Amino acid sequence: MMGFLLLFNGAFMLFSAIISWYYQDGAARGIIYAGLLTMLIGGILQFATKGFKKTIKKREGYLVVTLGWITMSLSGALPYIFTDAIPSFTNAFFETMSGYTTTGASILNDIESLPKSVLFWRSTTHWIGGMGIIVLAIAILPLLGIGGMQLFAAEAPGPSSDKLHPRITDTAKRLWFLYFGLTVVEAILLKFAGMGYFDAINHAMSTLSTGGFSTKNASVAYWNDQPLIQYIISFFMFVAGTNFVLSYFAVKGKFSKYLHDEEFKYYFLTVVGLTLITTIIVFNYAEVSQAATEIQKIAHPQIYGELESSFRHALFQVLAVITTTGFVSADFTIWSPFLTVMFFIMMFFGASAGSTSGGVKFVRLIIMVKNGFLELKRTIHPNAIILVRFSNKSVTRGIVFNILAFFVLYLIIFVIGALVFSFLGIDFMTSLGATASSLGNVGPAFGDLSPVNNYGILPPFAKWWSAFLMLLGRLELFTVLIIFTPYFWKNN
Amino acid sequence: MMGFLLLFNGAFMLFSAIISWYYQDGAARGIIYAGLLTMLIGGILQFATKGFKKTIKKREGYLVVTLGWITMSLSGALPYIFTDAIPSFTNAFFETMSGYTTTGASILNDIESLPKSVLFWRSTTHWIGGMGIIVLAIAILPLLGIGGMQLFAAEAPGPSSDKLHPRITDTAKRLWFLYFGLTVVEAILLKFAGMGYFDAINHAMSTLSTGGFSTKNASVAYWNDQPLIQYIISFFMFVAGTNFVLSYFAVKGKFSKYLHDEEFKYYFLTVVGLTLITTIIVFNYAEVSQAATEIQKIAHPQIYGELESSFRHALFQVLAVITTTGFVSADFTIWSPFLTVMFFIMMFFGASAGSTSGGVKFVRLIIMVKNGFLELKRTIHPNAIILVRFSNKSVTRGIVFNILAFFVLYLIIFVIGALVFSFLGIDFMTSLGATASSLGNVGPAFGDLSPVNNYGILPPFAKWWSAFLMLLGRLELFTVLIIFTPYFWKNN
Repeated sequence: MMGFLLLFNGAFMLFSAIISWYYQDGAARGIIYAGLLTMLIGGILQFATKGFKKTIKKREGYLVVTLGWITMSLSGALPYIFTDAIPSFTNAFFETMSGYTTTGASILNDIESLPKSVLFWRSTTHWIGGMGIIVLAIAILPLLGIGGMQLFAAEAPGPSSDKLHPRITDTAKRLWFLYFGLTVVEAILLKFAGMGYFDAINHAMSTLSTGGFSTKNASVAYWNDQPLIQYIISFFMFVAGTNFVLSYFAVKGKFSKYLHDEEFKYYFLTVVGLTLITTIIVFNYAEVSQAATEIQKIAHPQIYGELESSFRHALFQVLAVITTTGFVSADFTIWSPFLTVMFFIMMFFGASAGSTSGGVKFVRLIIMVKNGFLELKRTIHPNAIILVRFSNKSVTRGIVFNILAFFVLYLIIFVIGALVFSFLGIDFMTSLGATASSLGNVGPAFGDLSPVNNYGILPPFAKWWSAFLMLLGRLELFTVLIIFTPYFWKNN
Repeated sequence: MMGFLLLFNGAFMLFSAIISWYYQDGAARGIIYAGLLTMLIGGILQFATKGFKKTIKKREGYLVVTLGWITMSLSGALPYIFTDAIPSFTNAFFETMSGYTTTGASILNDIESLPKSVLFWRSTTHWIGGMGIIVLAIAILPLLGIGGMQLFAAEAPGPSSDKLHPRITDTAKRLWFLYFGLTVVEAILLKFAGMGYFDAINHAMSTLSTGGFSTKNASVAYWNDQPLIQYIISFFMFVAGTNFVLSYFAVKGKFSKYLHDEEFKYYFLTVVGLTLITTIIVFNYAEVSQAATEIQKIAHPQIYGELESSFRHALFQVLAVITTTGFVSADFTIWSPFLTVMFFIMMFFGASAGSTSGGVKFVRLIIMVKNGFLELKRTIHPNAIILVRFSNKSVTRGIVFNILAFFVLYLIIFVIGALVFSFLGIDFMTSLGATASSLGNVGPAFGDLSPVNNYGILPPFAKWWSAFLMLLGRLELFTVLIIFTPYFWKNN
């Protein structure tokens, strides 16, 4: 498995080398070396394990997924190192993990100074990560029984079968086709809206994967005078935060699926509601920080008091945070204390299950909140059996239990995460923000890691810690944590 | 019921008037008026409802408890208003609610300038609140089926009986006797350690109720040169954070109960662990803020680099926050970013169930964390029935469910709480801190509400909001929230 992943990853690197050759950016040699080395190791592993059995049992699934992500991130760092774009291994690994987990947090100060092919490789890590997540969330996690994802076990398109392998392969093919198609459509639309080809393709890859890497230092704020571009990206962020199974059926013409999906309903209404609240506040908010940095000045044009731009930035930033994409059109951390708290809380949300977004996800939030209020009813009627209903179906107590346990573990890791950052001398707000953002795969955070800053300022250990939190969050905690339990290693 | 509470409250006010007469502080008339008015209204209510049935059904219990606390706080504000000690009704109500909920947050700037009898009344509100909580937590909440407290349903001392009334009365009598005794013992010890009678009695009342009102502007930091006083208060804070049922059996000579109580074990070990961590950091921490205010200077003697005082302040502040007492011996918010995050998280903890402390409480935390990790085991073995064990007994899934729902509601209210504060223009850290502190009935918070500040700076609506959060937290959410559900008002 690892050998196959490395061959696959190496092939993508060689594709970046073609970009390098096209732009003559001088990075081709480094990327080719990285690609060949990756494929060589992959080939050796493939060859060495040739005669081994190919079926994967459920329990091995956790290990394969976790090791797979780590293998990808280790090999994916090579192009940065071999091209000297990011010479430090810690930084290169951070950037790669941030890529594959579709977080989008960066240690780079001057993105635009990098060779184009390296930027393309950076976007590619997002795009590959997004592919991985779609299959993971829709086909693999439900079978592994993780955190309520069982709810979606029967939803995946493709032949219904108990055999893990053919079912996953088929589901993957259909969804990747959709993912690829959506990326192409967004890139074409962005090109027509006025972006260059290179920027359009890179941003499309970053959007559909809810990643957030940009090719510009100012992120999407670079196009603040081209509203159409920002609306297009907003739309595709929303799509990327929708369950891909729903989008699949929509493409097949079955739009009614949207209406019957309770998660989509709440996701849509939440985005609408939060955008309205944010618009009102931004529209009425006249102050701009006196000590604005250069990037802040780009990120803060005359948006205040102007209805269209207030709405646009509100919509863009609400979607960027709730879908955990992390693109920046404006610095939401200076939009009043209320919006600071609101965006902080949104980092825990995430969008839909079965999308490329991170965080806790709406399905879990809805079921938890419903269950919380139903418990009040249960307290009054202790003998009645009162089940949570979701999308007009009763949810078993086992699944609600699973979701609540997931949430408790999420918070425990959040607490430990913030304690570790603060132990390294990072202040209260930045520690809390960095943990929420890393664990939720968002990208920008608060305080010293606000959208106009970058993760380069963190001490080395904090970067490793942040990368670990990204991995934990991306694999929905259980996949990684289970490996550390004695139950996993015990026979039977 | 309300009439009885008012008569009871009025009688305590008249007792404060005796203090006023003894010290000739000029507040006697105001307090006597307040007491007589309270008793008059109480008497009318008693008389008017004379012929009514006296048994209370479970469902009415929620209403009686909630309305009781509000009635007490409304009438308890009268002495402040009538003596002109706190002329503003908002401020007086805040101070009273903070008293009865044993929070200890104050809007007072110069505590020492108030008449002694008013300060005594202030401590009395804590002490009455503590009495209320003991009965509530040990006898009433388990019967109302709230948030896992059913675990303790059979633990309360007294005759085992299904009839609500005689059982509660008997349990209350025994525990109040213990509560009264412990208060007297602490007051005597404090007097012997060098406090004046007045301060000793007031601080004993504030400690046993885990309230936190002090008679000094600098709180317990006033006695920073008298370590014995601070150790005595620390000990009694620990006792006040222990399940009173355990203390009851200890007084009866049954010390083995401590050893078999899992909650006590974790509570004790957590206090020891956190004290050690805090001691190490405080001991090695040399910086003192340059811009220290006068109170900060008192609160920051030469404790850094000195082992005994580092340990003492670490122990004192860990206990003050985890037992939700909120006394101040030093300003923990400037003890490094790590301790800021740690103390923030501790505000959610609270101490034991069946104590006078607030917060989530150890029993719930233990069961939630255990359940979280067991869910990993359940994921690997989906067909096995794996129950959480607590104090060597299996906990039913219903109770675990109840606890998890409690926790989710606690966090929802925390999120809404912080959003409301921030909406009023209060910054990120202060908003989060004020919510955690109000909801957990702690007292001091962070940022603008750090231990050297007070809640007087809040805008009026924020004071009402904070008071509401205190009430919600104090009555373990369910008691108040249930009243707002349609299920409560529907027949059958």
